[in-house]
Amino acid sequence: MAGNSLGTVFRVTTWGESHGRAVGAVVDGCPAGLDLSEEDVQRELDRRRPGYSPVSTARREEDRAEILSGLFEGKTTGTPISILVWNRDAQSGAYDLLRNRPRPGHADLTYLARYGHRDHRGGGRSSGRETVGRVAAGAVAKKLLAGEGIDVAGYVRELGGVRAIIPNLDDISSLREEAGKNPVRCPDQKAAEEMIDVLDEARSAGDSLGGVAEIVAVGVPPGLGEPVFDKLDGDLARALMGIGAVKAVEIGAGAEAARMRGSESNDPIVPGTGGPNFATNNAGGILGGISTGSPIIIRIAVKPTPSISRSQRTVDLLTGKAAQIEIKGRHDPAIPPRIVPVAEAMVALVLADHLLRRRVARI
Amino acid sequence: MAGNSLGTVFRVTTWGESHGRAVGAVVDGCPAGLDLSEEDVQRELDRRRPGYSPVSTARREEDRAEILSGLFEGKTTGTPISILVWNRDAQSGAYDLLRNRPRPGHADLTYLARYGHRDHRGGGRSSGRETVGRVAAGAVAKKLLAGEGIDVAGYVRELGGVRAIIPNLDDISSLREEAGKNPVRCPDQKAAEEMIDVLDEARSAGDSLGGVAEIVAVGVPPGLGEPVFDKLDGDLARALMGIGAVKAVEIGAGAEAARMRGSESNDPIVPGTGGPNFATNNAGGILGGISTGSPIIIRIAVKPTPSISRSQRTVDLLTGKAAQIEIKGRHDPAIPPRIVPVAEAMVALVLADHLLRRRVARI
Amino acid sequence: MAGNSLGTVFRVTTWGESHGRAVGAVVDGCPAGLDLSEEDVQRELDRRRPGYSPVSTARREEDRAEILSGLFEGKTTGTPISILVWNRDAQSGAYDLLRNRPRPGHADLTYLARYGHRDHRGGGRSSGRETVGRVAAGAVAKKLLAGEGIDVAGYVRELGGVRAIIPNLDDISSLREEAGKNPVRCPDQKAAEEMIDVLDEARSAGDSLGGVAEIVAVGVPPGLGEPVFDKLDGDLARALMGIGAVKAVEIGAGAEAARMRGSESNDPIVPGTGGPNFATNNAGGILGGISTGSPIIIRIAVKPTPSISRSQRTVDLLTGKAAQIEIKGRHDPAIPPRIVPVAEAMVALVLADHLLRRRVARI
Amino acid sequence: MAGNSLGTVFRVTTWGESHGRAVGAVVDGCPAGLDLSEEDVQRELDRRRPGYSPVSTARREEDRAEILSGLFEGKTTGTPISILVWNRDAQSGAYDLLRNRPRPGHADLTYLARYGHRDHRGGGRSSGRETVGRVAAGAVAKKLLAGEGIDVAGYVRELGGVRAIIPNLDDISSLREEAGKNPVRCPDQKAAEEMIDVLDEARSAGDSLGGVAEIVAVGVPPGLGEPVFDKLDGDLARALMGIGAVKAVEIGAGAEAARMRGSESNDPIVPGTGGPNFATNNAGGILGGISTGSPIIIRIAVKPTPSISRSQRTVDLLTGKAAQIEIKGRHDPAIPPRIVPVAEAMVALVLADHLLRRRVARI
Repeated sequence: MAGNSLGTVFRVTTWGESHGRAVGAVVDGCPAGLDLSEEDVQRELDRRRPGYSPVSTARREEDRAEILSGLFEGKTTGTPISILVWNRDAQSGAYDLLRNRPRPGHADLTYLARYGHRDHRGGGRSSGRETVGRVAAGAVAKKLLAGEGIDVAGYVRELGGVRAIIPNLDDISSLREEAGKNPVRCPDQKAAEEMIDVLDEARSAGDSLGGVAEIVAVGVPPGLGEPVFDKLDGDLARALMGIGAVKAVEIGAGAEAARMRGSESNDPIVPGTGGPNFATNNAGGILGGISTGSPIIIRIAVKPTPSISRSQRTVDLLTGKAAQIEIKGRHDPAIPPRIVPVAEAMVALVLADHLLRRRVARI
Repeated sequence: MAGNSLGTVFRVTTWGESHGRAVGAVVDGCPAGLDLSEEDVQRELDRRRPGYSPVSTARREEDRAEILSGLFEGKTTGTPISILVWNRDAQSGAYDLLRNRPRPGHADLTYLARYGHRDHRGGGRSSGRETVGRVAAGAVAKKLLAGEGIDVAGYVRELGGVRAIIPNLDDISSLREEAGKNPVRCPDQKAAEEMIDVLDEARSAGDSLGGVAEIVAVGVPPGLGEPVFDKLDGDLARALMGIGAVKAVEIGAGAEAARMRGSESNDPIVPGTGGPNFATNNAGGILGGISTGSPIIIRIAVKPTPSISRSQRTVDLLTGKAAQIEIKGRHDPAIPPRIVPVAEAMVALVLADHLLRRRVARI
Repeated sequence: MAGNSLGTVFRVTTWGESHGRAVGAVVDGCPAGLDLSEEDVQRELDRRRPGYSPVSTARREEDRAEILSGLFEGKTTGTPISILVWNRDAQSGAYDLLRNRPRPGHADLTYLARYGHRDHRGGGRSSGRETVGRVAAGAVAKKLLAGEGIDVAGYVRELGGVRAIIPNLDDISSLREEAGKNPVRCPDQKAAEEMIDVLDEARSAGDSLGGVAEIVAVGVPPGLGEPVFDKLDGDLARALMGIGAVKAVEIGAGAEAARMRGSESNDPIVPGTGGPNFATNNAGGILGGISTGSPIIIRIAVKPTPSISRSQRTVDLLTGKAAQIEIKGRHDPAIPPRIVPVAEAMVALVLADHLLRRRVARI
Repeated sequence: MAGNSLGTVFRVTTWGESHGRAVGAVVDGCPAGLDLSEEDVQRELDRRRPGYSPVSTARREEDRAEILSGLFEGKTTGTPISILVWNRDAQSGAYDLLRNRPRPGHADLTYLARYGHRDHRGGGRSSGRETVGRVAAGAVAKKLLAGEGIDVAGYVRELGGVRAIIPNLDDISSLREEAGKNPVRCPDQKAAEEMIDVLDEARSAGDSLGGVAEIVAVGVPPGLGEPVFDKLDGDLARALMGIGAVKAVEIGAGAEAARMRGSESNDPIVPGTGGPNFATNNAGGILGGISTGSPIIIRIAVKPTPSISRSQRTVDLLTGKAAQIEIKGRHDPAIPPRIVPVAEAMVALVLADHLLRRRVARI
């Protein structure tokens, strides 16, 4: 109930603080018999790792995944999979000044309001470092999904006001390949260049940028999702809104649906191989909370990195008086490129859970 | 796990189909000692009820709430509160033609994909009628919140492309009063008139419109919400995305945050009475998944009513061939005005749950 | 979390008080496509109903089950099954005297300690009447189990010190038939006569008796149960200990296992048709929390009915002083005969849940 | 749902196999602000550790607890507490012979039936080594309980047919002290000597013994426990039945209650300081599933250690033919002495959970 677990059948619990000894995840409910290796997890952690490019934070973590349980002779045993990653490059000294000066845009004050007592170093539990556990668990989920022909990929759709043009959402391999070619993870190379330019400018100005990421899942069979509260879109929205910095989630036509008419918005039903099909996909692959078989399409709006080097207004907690703060740590000037593997992991975790849940829907 | 329950401590389970014998909700986890009456529930059901105006469906249900358990001498006892509403005006005949012609934009095909077998009458479980149970339970939640000084109100912000101007989100009483003056529930009376006009036009054209509703909660104390997966914003997003027809959820600055810079987006921290405060509220009252004490502000984008009288393309399930469908039932030409009390209920349910969950956060 | 729900996949929530308007249950997670009728539920409620014999309470309730949702054309739809039974014969006046005199052996004082405020009439929520909901839900579970060849039956093994001789636990049909021949539900007719005699004697003395019931489940396939906390035996123990008046639960050899040696207690593994088998069944059909395929055998020790007409010591809550209490209501002089259908229901609910949970154990 | 988590508010997830790399637990939901150190956990692990006496297995593990998260400056932060213990002395070779010869009395066949694929080394996940995580988490729970004046202690009441005489269940300190004086953890020194004698005899005969352990909790305030399915006794029964080798659980008078009359079994209510009190404690501290304020008293019947060196009948999984098995590993000749700290941990975990759950029972 304390909110560090996600999923019902395929359930992940993450633990660990930014500057604690380690971070990790326990995956409970992964079916027995899945081929899995530390490499499967490492691959995703490497995609998440900071420091891979000039647009990213300078914190360097090797982030080696160690699987401590739940595997035997290369296969999952159906018992909990405990994955651990040590924290090695935590530089807590940089945060001493911040102990009593809550950072705007961060969870400093809210953690204090809730718990009275907090690990302020690097944001503690509210740090982006917590997502190591999510990505590790997501790697297990992706392996499970792959076995059922489901593929999940994400990319940056907009950054600092620059919008990418994405011609075809269905060709997920090509989207992934193109997004992999630049540090902002945008499949539109021309837009990517512009994004890098505005990012450089913002960083020079001691500021940061927001943007939009999109995640697509193809191969999702129809029938995933539980009415009425555990809808697939509801669960996806929660999982994605639960990533730090996300302020909006859209499915399919999303916010644009509000400006459509029913005759435009409704996806016509047409005969297809293997049964009725949808001529368009404004639904984003989900109707009534249940997957339609069309690609699932989700967008998230990401606020600018709250840690900026410009001086900001805050309050000194010891004196209660107004104070200034300049954040000197190592931070990404924009979160969307780094959020991509995390968002993919969240989508994979939700889909893996619902894939298993569907098994009990019928006699 | 079958998805008909919401909440952890304050937990509601809804049941019932559009054309079944009754619909209802069981609220488990409401603390003992809360003053509650059937009138408290009836008031909210009346706000939800169709048929109150020319912009709404013609289905007429008296919708009398009966509280069957959990109350004794006007107070809750801590045991489950079972609330029942009989279905009386179900006209199932109108749906016979639709049995084998799935309606575009509805859950007909997805329920079939999931369950193999479905109650097609009036959409069965996926009908808007299911929200009777949500609103009834939400009334209990609102009563609990009121005791703590928390107030939740919603209204229509945009309809058919017409946008309202909302001067002051903090004055929730005035917003509620103004929204109550017109059938589209828009606090901007001038915009409301325009909305009614476009709505009339769309209906005449056999079509429907989408829009945007906004829900505000004031008086929410800081410290509500669980990191990292049961964040307050995550849970709100899920609860709202789980209402039929919602395609996007935004918190605070929402999608606009993606176009801001950190120096704009971050809400400055300033000294206030009773501790540090926030000078602005781009966060929408939530930071790191935990309430800040500022008003909580959420917007939902609602797609146009999928049931339209225009002819649409579908497939005949018996023959597998292309077919046409015209939906003759009784339907709202736009959902936003009617979604308001449902969305309020969902927000109230999530807040009530987290209000109680906060009680165990500290020694 | 408030404890009125049981099960994970196949999940029942019961509601209602002894002297409230109705009692009921919502079953969420029953797979779609199960043949089910009100008669299936009625049959079990009739077995539970009081008033069928001289050894039982005189309260007369018709107890008609009404299924309000989740069924369509004779089959479950996968949506919640709401079952309601009206309370008609509640005579609350008899309880007025008890309002401020807590009854020994009952939950009166503990409910007060917990909730501050309670419905004292007939024990309110802690009444045996709450088991109507359990038995109704259990009837659905039994139907699901029957489709998989699983049969559950219970009977009285001991009453007021009289022990039955049960020759063969495997012949469940014969056990059921024999137990159905007498009002104490004991398959040993000779013992049954003695039990009735001691029961008559105890009642005449204004007293009550305890006893032991046994529940057997045959046809349970191997592989049901989750290590390490949701073990099948753990879940059964919880479900049965959670019936009012149960003070001990044993599986297989049970308490006797404590006096065995390993060489006696271990069930030898022997070749069988379809794989290894067990030569004996001290395990009671469960090893390491997972079913073995042998019959599941559970015994519960039931305390004497706490409501007795003899004078007992209590405290007057208004004065805080010692007082006497004589309970005049309508009560069974012994609970074991009436606990049988309830215990069967609990076992069926747990097995149905684990039957479905097993579906996600492997790739 | 996969059964490796226990508790609702105070929730523990254990992970790890007997011969895997490590075992551990994640405690989620421990309130912020609790004083906690690795020493608190180590103390309990040392009590659980094998190899401390001639009556115990020879496996030697240092079992150093490492707390990897959730602590800051000596206090819990409200975030997950991850505790890890490395496996160092695993001698897997001894188990190679057992891979295809399932051991009677163990979970070998049932894990195979469930998962198809299993880690056979040392029993894998079904090994007693899994209880390291339980005891570590239980240490955190005990710390929380201690702050509220609740104390939990266990001891051996019967072993190999030798019964201890326990004069006074209320003096928990003395029970703990006396039980600590001998390796069988029996507070009756004379009985302890006899127990050691029969244990020596059984071991010499290549056999093993069962017994009974009792756990007492004092200082538990009234009002803990949720009706109707999450009763305190139900949850305790589940937690204790879920320890390997436990075949029966009794509360208070337990099985003896079945032979009492209501006039004996009912605990008279008498005036006490601070309100009504109970003159006796046949209820074992729980009525209607809710704590009474009297000591909670639970007994568990433990079967003999299934691993014995005598030859036993089994089946060779490769040939499907009858075979013999002699188990050469390092095993305790009786489980009750070692089960004591585990059972205490389970009781502490359940009480900690319900202590927190009570906080939301009233307005």
